[in-house]
Parts: sequence; structure tokens; C-alpha cells
Amino acid sequence: MSPVVGSAFFLFYLLALCNASGADIALDAKATLLHRIDSLNLLIYTCLLTLTVLTIWVFKHRRVSWLHETGLAVIYGLIVGAIIRYASSTNQVTYIDAHPAPDTKYNLSVPPDILRFRFPDKIQISSGDTVPNKTYAYSFRGEIVNLEQNEIDLKATFDPEIFFNIILPPIIFHAGYCLKRKYFFRNLGAILTFAMVGTALSALVIGALMYGFVQLMPASLASSFTFLDTLYFGALISPTDPLTVLAIFSQLKVDVNLYAMIFGESVLNDAVALVLSGAIQNYEKRYSVDGGFEITAFLAAIGDFIGIFSLSLLVGALLGCFTALMTKFTHVRDWPLLESALFVLMSYAAFLIAEVFELTGVVAVLFCGICQAHYTYNNLSSDSRNRTKQLFELLNFLAENFIFTYIGVSMFTFPKHHFDPWFIIAGFLTSTLGRAVNIYPLSFLLNLGRKPPIPMNFQHMLFFSGLRGAMSFALAIRNTVSEARQAMLTTTSLIVIATVVLQGGAATHALAYLRIPTGQGQNDENEALPYRDVRSLYQATDSGRPETPRSGEAGEKARLARLWGALDSRLLKPLLTHARPPLTETLPGFLSPLARILTTTRQYTQADNSLRRTDSDSDLCLDEPQPVPTSIDPQLSFSLRNGYGNV
Amino acid sequence: MSPVVGSAFFLFYLLALCNASGADIALDAKATLLHRIDSLNLLIYTCLLTLTVLTIWVFKHRRVSWLHETGLAVIYGLIVGAIIRYASSTNQVTYIDAHPAPDTKYNLSVPPDILRFRFPDKIQISSGDTVPNKTYAYSFRGEIVNLEQNEIDLKATFDPEIFFNIILPPIIFHAGYCLKRKYFFRNLGAILTFAMVGTALSALVIGALMYGFVQLMPASLASSFTFLDTLYFGALISPTDPLTVLAIFSQLKVDVNLYAMIFGESVLNDAVALVLSGAIQNYEKRYSVDGGFEITAFLAAIGDFIGIFSLSLLVGALLGCFTALMTKFTHVRDWPLLESALFVLMSYAAFLIAEVFELTGVVAVLFCGICQAHYTYNNLSSDSRNRTKQLFELLNFLAENFIFTYIGVSMFTFPKHHFDPWFIIAGFLTSTLGRAVNIYPLSFLLNLGRKPPIPMNFQHMLFFSGLRGAMSFALAIRNTVSEARQAMLTTTSLIVIATVVLQGGAATHALAYLRIPTGQGQNDENEALPYRDVRSLYQATDSGRPETPRSGEAGEKARLARLWGALDSRLLKPLLTHARPPLTETLPGFLSPLARILTTTRQYTQADNSLRRTDSDSDLCLDEPQPVPTSIDPQLSFSLRNGYGNV
Repeated sequence: MSPVVGSAFFLFYLLALCNASGADIALDAKATLLHRIDSLNLLIYTCLLTLTVLTIWVFKHRRVSWLHETGLAVIYGLIVGAIIRYASSTNQVTYIDAHPAPDTKYNLSVPPDILRFRFPDKIQISSGDTVPNKTYAYSFRGEIVNLEQNEIDLKATFDPEIFFNIILPPIIFHAGYCLKRKYFFRNLGAILTFAMVGTALSALVIGALMYGFVQLMPASLASSFTFLDTLYFGALISPTDPLTVLAIFSQLKVDVNLYAMIFGESVLNDAVALVLSGAIQNYEKRYSVDGGFEITAFLAAIGDFIGIFSLSLLVGALLGCFTALMTKFTHVRDWPLLESALFVLMSYAAFLIAEVFELTGVVAVLFCGICQAHYTYNNLSSDSRNRTKQLFELLNFLAENFIFTYIGVSMFTFPKHHFDPWFIIAGFLTSTLGRAVNIYPLSFLLNLGRKPPIPMNFQHMLFFSGLRGAMSFALAIRNTVSEARQAMLTTTSLIVIATVVLQGGAATHALAYLRIPTGQGQNDENEALPYRDVRSLYQATDSGRPETPRSGEAGEKARLARLWGALDSRLLKPLLTHARPPLTETLPGFLSPLARILTTTRQYTQADNSLRRTDSDSDLCLDEPQPVPTSIDPQLSFSLRNGYGNV
Repeated sequence: MSPVVGSAFFLFYLLALCNASGADIALDAKATLLHRIDSLNLLIYTCLLTLTVLTIWVFKHRRVSWLHETGLAVIYGLIVGAIIRYASSTNQVTYIDAHPAPDTKYNLSVPPDILRFRFPDKIQISSGDTVPNKTYAYSFRGEIVNLEQNEIDLKATFDPEIFFNIILPPIIFHAGYCLKRKYFFRNLGAILTFAMVGTALSALVIGALMYGFVQLMPASLASSFTFLDTLYFGALISPTDPLTVLAIFSQLKVDVNLYAMIFGESVLNDAVALVLSGAIQNYEKRYSVDGGFEITAFLAAIGDFIGIFSLSLLVGALLGCFTALMTKFTHVRDWPLLESALFVLMSYAAFLIAEVFELTGVVAVLFCGICQAHYTYNNLSSDSRNRTKQLFELLNFLAENFIFTYIGVSMFTFPKHHFDPWFIIAGFLTSTLGRAVNIYPLSFLLNLGRKPPIPMNFQHMLFFSGLRGAMSFALAIRNTVSEARQAMLTTTSLIVIATVVLQGGAATHALAYLRIPTGQGQNDENEALPYRDVRSLYQATDSGRPETPRSGEAGEKARLARLWGALDSRLLKPLLTHARPPLTETLPGFLSPLARILTTTRQYTQADNSLRRTDSDSDLCLDEPQPVPTSIDPQLSFSLRNGYGNV
């Protein structure tokens, strides 16, 4: 690694010195230089990720548990970021001030897309060339707020849009695709409460407290933050990303319901925070004059929130169901490569369709992932099941580690940081408080109606799992126009780094301190129920057939889950997959012609004992046996089941 | 599909009409609009690919063989391109001419990276705002040659660099990773001759002929082409891309040696053409004054060619071997996800390192792929083997179909096409002639020294397999500054479309017409040699042990292959993989301490009968049994082995 970076920096110096003669050749050289700098940036991250992978291996090999891979990625990122910042030459960008040409007529209220810049070529060409002054195209980039800020712009940074369009979708899709739906639905009430109400509450509390803090600070700072700014900060810092904690949970086999609550909440609150921050920005756009608070606009923002969230959900779910129908009623499964390609394309289309219609692609892709796992997965050939699972697992791993590496590197190289110690301290305090407001009061309310209540040590653990991560960072780096936004980015980066490294490292101790039982959970349950799956559980409950009594868990199932289960097992599963019972049995009689059309021969003919294999409704990524290599250490099978399957 | 595109166009119209008040909001709306147009472009291609996948499925299901998926992708692309061109509103880009600000002092020989454009804001803000004129940043894009060309720039087109940095690497890596090395090495002499000498010869002949043609044409055309221009055209049109033909070959089980020659040549000539065109451009840069021909510069270009090619090869091979060492001497294989991530990262690093050092990343990634298949693959866990194979198969499939779709769409939407009927006709003629000059004289020469000569019908088939594809298009679209280059792009696109659709469609008939035997090949051979692999063949030959006599094929093996085989089986394989015999047996005695360090216990202890499983030196993607789905049509196992495994 270090020789690579070393030689890369040497090259950097060489490149900076390069100054060819002749404008055309210089221009070509410049294009080449830019291309090489791009490649170098990518290479730096590739090397960092390689290093992270190797170190993770060493850590796993030596059973180090106090540092998770994301923490490692952040730390390596910080180190390399510092090296790039302080050890490499500043590759100064050249600027010229430009004005419209004197004789230009234009009728634009907005700056144009392209400038045609007539640049006086200093090099005199001796031959009778007719174009001594060449014209160059310049494309619009953004507003310049601070004219003095001639900062390095090319150093190992990427367009923030990359996070939303390339890095986040596979992470979020994977989360949906790997959601352990059995436990998710069993704890649906708690998860929805924490993710929906809790995130909004947390955003509001953090926003209000931050506004108060800012008012207490020096006047220069106070004036640069409106209430909407701090509310936006509240929204972006509220989503949690407890990767580290969850990895430790599955290593130590912590209670599955706790796992499901923390994971389910973190999956959903990413989506909630994204839509929430969008609604706040829309509000801001509508009433950007004074940053005040109008009740109609506030209601419109809530309408925005609900509308965008549910429409995005609908787009994702529809695309997922459409894929299920395509894989059910065609024989595309005979060609697994085509099938996998179709699967990937349809899932990405969900993201793109939502984005095209100004909805939230991330929400769409999340629910698309859940539907793909719940319905389409059952129709896929076993080759495609493996392929899609492994593909998204790998993409998720690379994307996640890339984003944490980038958080580390950008701490030093991103030009738009603004260190404001008061704001940072206030940010740490309020984000902790916001998490507490999310968990404790809502747990109290939930426990009023919940059969086995959420015990106090679980609540503490939920509070402790409030690590911040990729989504907060992506939202913070999206807009860094004003000083207020830059201070938010810096604070968010620091909170992410601190929580991932410190809280992540202390997770094992927290589990021990809170006396949360380990070494139980999903595996026990599977052993107890070797040939059962969720669908049959739903069935048993819904149709009144006797269910094997199971230690108090039946009552725990939320009412929502039961309603959903009935709809799912009687209508959606038979319609979208080859699962039994066929629609001909579940639909009312007058619909039977339709039901016959929508039922495949496979649904009629397949015996009930083949259900278990076909219908993988249970824990997709956790329970299914993975292909085990031929000659391995005994610890492999453990790590395969627990190390990565379910993060 | 059509409702999606229909509604997308409707949205397009709506967006074009959108005109909010207030410059800031308008600017925000514009950014949103651009983001949505980007998403829409991606969505169009995603839908096109989905449609292609579904149609391929229908074709395979109904056993249609006259149209391959790439041909289909091109045709769909053309249709949608025409719709976009003629049915949607032209989303006019706004321009303003700009000059340097009057009082600016600058000292630049090259246009600056960023313009700071002071745009007089037409909207008067009533409050006492201090910044009535806002400043915007504009970044450098390129030279404007034709000021009248206010063409659509935003319609479903991408930056050409995307092809070289994102689309081509996985395609080329996959080609290297899936190369059937047994037959490749057996025909190494012929493949190298066709790929190296043949491509250069073809480029030269096409270049010279085109220059002659151009001189015969109207004066305006003749003056815009230099000899270097036509030579560049020769280089970019020479590489072949016989995907369609090869797909049919493996469906019909055509002779494996013919398959290996065509595939091997097409893999290598992509790399050769890329380096060749780079050398021509370098030559052009050095002597850009008159486009003449100087002998020293010519020699320098040849030096460039050889140097860049071999250094790139070295970078790729070293990274591949380094990965092999890492997977051999660490236990990272216990965590297949980490192992796969490492594999992908190292392979991509090969590409990036080559690019950073101004070598050719594509060449590096090709030879990295070959090394990964030859060495690293043997060290991987079975999970990683599957995962990497399936990942790159899927990426290759998507990238390949994307590029052919794009060729179709860009025929209508790319603004820099220049239709010149004479140049197009000349292009078709000379590219056919160039292919003939590549095959027939070189086959004649090869047959002088080759034991079983290449029969005449094989030569015709080699000639017929001269389809042009992704690499030609990517090279042509890279530079479209001058009219000459634009004419080249148009001609190249048309040649690619015509050869892929027509020649690809006629491949089955050509096989029948040339009486090339089908229904034999790899499978027979495997059945004859159920428990043998290449390495043991090499061993047998090298150590003088008796070999089962096999119908004249032993003599056919090139001398190069035998030399390489000795080095490979005695030094490289034992060093880089767990293969037997260990280095302790093959290295001379005085090196035995070193040999002991480099030999793993697994190499000592493993029995010879485990070799077959571990050492997959034979046809990686062709022969290995793929996981077969549980309940399938009988035709599946056929398609699995032949439809996609080896393209």
C-alpha cells in the first residue's frame, strides 16, 4: 500500500510540473492529467479498501472484536486523508473572471448552461490560421459564494450525487433484500413507531435544541442559522446505522427480536430521514425569504412527506411485484443469467423511476428489495438466488466500506469543512439527547400495549445502538453552499466517526454491562422448528388451525402483522409466487375463472413438502445454508452464517 | 416498456415548460431537472436492456437463431434512438458568449479550469441585498469548433470516457477470466499471428486504401483527412468482436480449435488495436504540423506500441500473481466475501495502476484476468469461485448489451455524427479487405509451419467472423472534434451495426455453407479424457513420460506453448497455487530452503487425485459443471453449458 501511494504522490508531483508547449498539446496533456488524477483518486480508494479487507481478515483471524470493518475503514481513511492533505502538493485550479461579451443579447433569468469563452491564445501561430482566438465551452457548475475560497478541488473528492445515485442504492436494496422478515413483521409495531414517529420526534427535538444552542452562541454564528437549518440538521443526524453493533449481535447470537428492532428501525429511518429532509428543503424553497414558520406551509411539508414516502413505497413495491409476476409466468428461470439480469435491471428501474418522478429513489429501492425477497426470490432458479444474493452482498460490502473510507478521507480533503467547536459540541449533545427522546418515551408508550414489554436493558441497548452512518453523511455533503451547511457537514462527519469507532468498539462491553443474554436467538429457534416457516405460521393463526404453543411469542405478534399475514398468504403469495394454497382455494367463488388463469400448474401439482424448499420466506440471508467450501477451518461455517450474511 | 417511455416523454415536455420565478428557485429547479434527465437517460437504457433480456428469452424459448442478443440490442437501440430524436422536444441548451473581464490580469497559455462568471441577475430584489450580481462557476469542457452547432447535448448520451473506464474493463476482464486456456495455448502461434501481425497489417492496409479513396473524392473531403487520420481509422476498425458467431459456435458445438482461434484473436486484437491507436495519436501529437510521415517518429510510435503493450501486460500479470500469492499464503479464503472483495479490488487496481502510469488499463485488466483464472482461481474457496465467475458473467452481459444498445441509440441522438456516403462505402469495402488481408496471407504463412494446417473452410470462417464491435465504437466515439473524426464515428457505427445484425444473423448459414462440422468439439474431448487436464498433459510432454496417442494433436501444439507449459507447471503454478508438484521437487537443490518456505502444507499433503478438483486449469467457464436448478426443462442443461458460459 504505502509504496503505491508513495509512487502515486511522486507521480502527482511530476504531473504538476508538466508544462508542455503549444496550446493544443497543453490542452491534451491537461485532459490526460485530469484522467490520471481521476484514476489516481480511484486507485487510492481501491488500495484503501484492499487494505481494509486484509486488515479485517487479520482481525477476524485473530478474533479481534473491538474494531469493526467500518471503524477500520474510517480510521484508514483519516490517515490517508491527512497524508494527502499535508504531504502532497496543492494542485491549484486556474481561474479567470469572465463577463458576458459586450455585444451579447440575451434574455435569461437563469445563468446559461454553457459559456462560450473566447480565450485569447497567447501563442502566435506563424501560418495564416484563420482562428487565432479559440472558443472553448464551459459548463455550469454552481454558485460561487466565497470568492476568496480558491481551494483545492481535485483532491480525492467525488460529486456528492454519486452517493445518492451509485453508493446508497445497493446498500439500501441489500438491506431490504436481506431483511429478516419473520422477526421484522413480528416487531412491526415497535419498528414503525421508532422509525416513523421516533425519527420525526428526534429531528424536531434536535432541531429545536440546536436552535436554542445557536442563539446562545456568538452573534456571527447565531445569525447564520435559521430554525429550518437546525431542523434540517436534526433530520439528517437522526437516522441510525448500527452496522457495527449488528455485526457483533450476530456473532454473539443476541436475542433476535432485539436484532430485528434495531435493524428494522435503521433500515426504515434512513428512508424516513431522507424524505423528511426533502420535505424541509421544499418548505425552505417555498418560504426562503425569512426562514419563518407558517402553518400552511408546515402542513404542506407534512403532506409532501406522506405523499412522497407512500408514492415511493408504491413504486418500489409495484416494480418488485412486477418482477415477481414476470418470473412466475415466464420460463426465464431456465436461463439463470437472463433471470439475474432481469432482477437487477428491474430493481434499478425502481430507483430510477422514483427519481424521474421526483420521488425518493432510495425509499423505492428499499421496498423493491423487500418485495423481491418476499415474492420474486421464491420464483427464481437456485442459480439466480445465489447469484443475486452474492452480488448484492458484495456490492453492499464494497459500497459500505467505500463510504466509510470516504468519510475518513474527506475529513481532510473535502474543501468545504467549517470547524466550529460550539456547534460540534452542541451537535454531539443534542444527537445523544435526540436518540434518548426517540427510544425511552416511545418504548414506554409501546410497553402499554405490548404483550412481552421491551425490557429496560433492551431499551438501553436500543439507545446505545444509535450510531450514525452513511445516510447522515450523504445528506450532509449534498449541500455545502452556506457556512451553516458546512458546519453541519463537519459536525456530522465527526459524529459519524466518533460513534462508529468508539460506540462500535464498546458494543461488546455494552452487551455484557447491560446483561443482555447472548448465545441464543435464531439458531435455537430454527432447531426447534426445523420444517416450519413463517407462512405456515400465519396460516395456522389465521385459519384457526391449532398452533404448537411457543413460549409466549404468539401473543407478541402485532395486530398489523396478523392482518398483513392474512392478505399476504391468501392473495399476494399465491398470486405472485408458486406458493400454495393456490388462488383457486383462497379467492371467493365468483372470481374462480380469474383465479384459474393466475394459478400455474406447478402450484396445483406441487406437494406440500416441497414448500419448505421453494418458499424461503424466513430469513433469506441468515438461515439458508450457503455453499460450504470443500476444505476449510472449522470456524468458517460459523463466520459464513454470522459474519456477513445479515448485516 | 412503451407506456414507460411514453410517460417519460410526457414528463420531458412538462419539465421543459417548467419556469419558476426567482433566480435561486429557478436554479434549484434546473439542478433538479438535470438530475431527472440523467435519471431518465439511465431509465431509458434500463428499460431497453430489460426489453432485450425478455426478447432474448422469447427467442431462446422458441429457438430462434437468426438474431443474437447483441443484434437485438442494436435494433432496439436504433428504434428508441429514432423515437427520442424525432418524437421528443429538443431540450435546447442555453448559451452565452463570454469574454475575460476587462480588468483581469492572467498569465495562462491554456484556457483556465474554472470561469467565474458574473451574471447580471435580471430579477430585482426589493430588499437591500448586497449581492445583486451573482457569480457562478463554470468548468472547462472542450473546444468549440463549429459555433453554429447548437445541437442537443443532453439527449441520452454519455461521456465517452465512461466506455473506457466503466464499460470495457469488466468485458475485457471477463474475456481473460473465461479464456479457454487449454485451446488458447495450443493455438497460441496462430492467435498471436492473427492478433498482432494481422491487426497491424489490417490497420495499415485499411489506412492506405482509405487514404487513396479519400484522395479520389471531392476536394473538400480529401483535404480534411490526413494519412494519419485514415491510419487511425484503420486501427480502430481492425479489432473484431465475434460475440454472435461464438455464441452460435458453442450452441452448435463447432470445432474447439476454430473457436479458440476466433475467440483468442478477438480478445487480443482489442488490446492491440487500443495500444496501436494510442501510438498513432502520440505520433500525431508529436508531428501535428502537417500530418506527414517521419521515419524517426514512426519508429518511436512502434517503440511506444511495444513498450506500452508489454508494460501494461506486466502490470496486469503482476497484480494477478500478487492476488494469487495473497490468496495462497493467507487464510482469507475462510471468509469468502472478503476473498471475493479482494479479488475484485485487485483486478480493478490493475486497470487503475496502468491508467495512472499512462499505460493501457484494458490490456492490464485482460492479462490480469488471465492470471487470475490461471493461478488465483485455484486458490479460491468454492464460494468465491462461483461468486466471481457469476459476478463477472453478469457484469459482462449487462455491459455488452448496454454498449450495443448505446450504439443503436447514439446513431440518432449523438450530436456529432457526420454522414458522408463516400466515406461510408469506402469504409465498408476497406474493412472487408482488411479482414481478408489479415486472414488469408497469414494463414498461408502459418500453414507452412503448422502440422495440421488451417483448412480453407476454417480460413473462410475466420474471415467471416470479422464482426466489429464494442472496442471499435469506443475508440471512434472517444474523439469527435474534427469533421474527419465524426465521419469515422458514423462509418464505424454503421459497420458495427451491419456486421452484428447481418453477419451475426447469417452465421448459422455460413457454417452450413462452408461445411464446417458441428456437434463435436469440447464435449467429445472431455468424454475422451474424463480425468485429465492440461497440466498433466504438459507434464507428460515435458518430462518425457509416455502420452496416450491422440489423433495428431500432440504435434499441433505450438513450441511456444510447450516452453510456457514447462515454466508454468514447474515454477509458476507451484509458486502461486497449491498445485503439485511442489517447488521442493521442481527447483534445483541449492534453492531448496526458499522452496520450502514457498510451499504450503497443503501442497505436500494433498493427494494426486484431488488435483482434478483443485486445479481448474482447463476450461474455466466451459467445462465446469454449473449448479443446476432443481426443477427445469431438459433444455436448460444444454443452454447452461453453451448459451452463456463461454462467450
